[in-house]
Amino acid sequence: MGSASLVLFARLSGLVIAVLVVYWALLLVPHQGLTYSTLHPLLMVIGFILVSGEAILIHRWLPGSRKTKKAVHLWLQGMALVSAVFGIWTKFQYQSGVFSNFYSLHSWMGLLSVSLFAAQWVTGFMSFWHRGEVRTTRTTFLPWHVFLGLYTYGLAIATAETGLLEKLTFLQTNKNVPRRCHESTVVNGLGLGLVLLSGVVITAAILPKYQNSHSGNEKLVYSSQDRPKCLTS
Amino acid sequence: MGSASLVLFARLSGLVIAVLVVYWALLLVPHQGLTYSTLHPLLMVIGFILVSGEAILIHRWLPGSRKTKKAVHLWLQGMALVSAVFGIWTKFQYQSGVFSNFYSLHSWMGLLSVSLFAAQWVTGFMSFWHRGEVRTTRTTFLPWHVFLGLYTYGLAIATAETGLLEKLTFLQTNKNVPRRCHESTVVNGLGLGLVLLSGVVITAAILPKYQNSHSGNEKLVYSSQDRPKCLTS
Repeated sequence: MGSASLVLFARLSGLVIAVLVVYWALLLVPHQGLTYSTLHPLLMVIGFILVSGEAILIHRWLPGSRKTKKAVHLWLQGMALVSAVFGIWTKFQYQSGVFSNFYSLHSWMGLLSVSLFAAQWVTGFMSFWHRGEVRTTRTTFLPWHVFLGLYTYGLAIATAETGLLEKLTFLQTNKNVPRRCHESTVVNGLGLGLVLLSGVVITAAILPKYQNSHSGNEKLVYSSQDRPKCLTS
Repeated sequence: MGSASLVLFARLSGLVIAVLVVYWALLLVPHQGLTYSTLHPLLMVIGFILVSGEAILIHRWLPGSRKTKKAVHLWLQGMALVSAVFGIWTKFQYQSGVFSNFYSLHSWMGLLSVSLFAAQWVTGFMSFWHRGEVRTTRTTFLPWHVFLGLYTYGLAIATAETGLLEKLTFLQTNKNVPRRCHESTVVNGLGLGLVLLSGVVITAAILPKYQNSHSGNEKLVYSSQDRPKCLTS
């Protein structure tokens, strides 16, 4: 499967996830409407996770110069960051105050994930504008930016899974929502969709390195320690 | 930070996690003892996640031939797989039967993670014993084994996070355990420890490729598409 099919597959999964989260948050429970409580999953899943997944994939499909790709990547990640901050903010709108939220694993994982994301964005932004930096400094920095970015993306997905499960467990134990019902099917489908999406996006992001080993002109080179080290052209 | 320090750091995180899960499952709640319910987190966190993390790191520190490393890796992952299957089996020991368990996102994510792990182990085992295979087939297969292995490891960590949160949310809403208490601190610490461990293990697993860019004799080569492709020596 090539890079283009993976991008298409990532978007199809993203579309299914978007439909499921909108249906769950806005349509499934009658007269629920747009509240702080329903805004949170919408902002986090669509605004943060789906938009940042699209930003990760920019380098795999957007034509144009490297500078254009980096600018679009930076803008999309900026939008994702604003959504994430706004999504956290919705949880501070209850009478209980800001600090009362930080009791659960979901909140701590979310805070860690958004903080890492913000740090990545700021360093990416600085690197983008500091054209004067030595090229070797920027090329040394790039693999770490890619790795930490994909780790943060995975952490955001894991945090979303804990949020979905926390909400459903709360409904099942406190509100007598049955364990097997339409709502639990939708939420579990959403959770499994996110697992699939993360796999597709991360594969698409790192694929080019591996893809070359299938091409006839390139070969896999082993280091003296007998571990895969490099794909040379 | 070199590969050796990362392996040490991974083991320290693993030790803290092991102490926390033993303390939570066996000592925190008086007279709880070793039941199917307490066996599940012990087998999944220590037997599955910590052992498979150790197996991932084998190639980073174990001296000896490539064959020895692969054999130890295979044995450790086999132990992890047995623990995982036994850990799932503990959940089938209640009166409600096997299928009643598969209602939550935790159960579906866990089933997916252990199935992927088993498939990886079987293909790894076959590749290990089929020495006659063309070397290029095995070298093509290796990056996918590494990638899918790390993805499965990440999924196992995410599943553990949902399990911890499910248990704590259930205790808080159904058993009136307060949101801020000694137990929630221990469980949240365990969850954040697992987030840290996954970051350290995955970094240690992929580091050698990136580490070389800091060395004077090697350089980062860009392809015509201006993306990082290869580290040549």
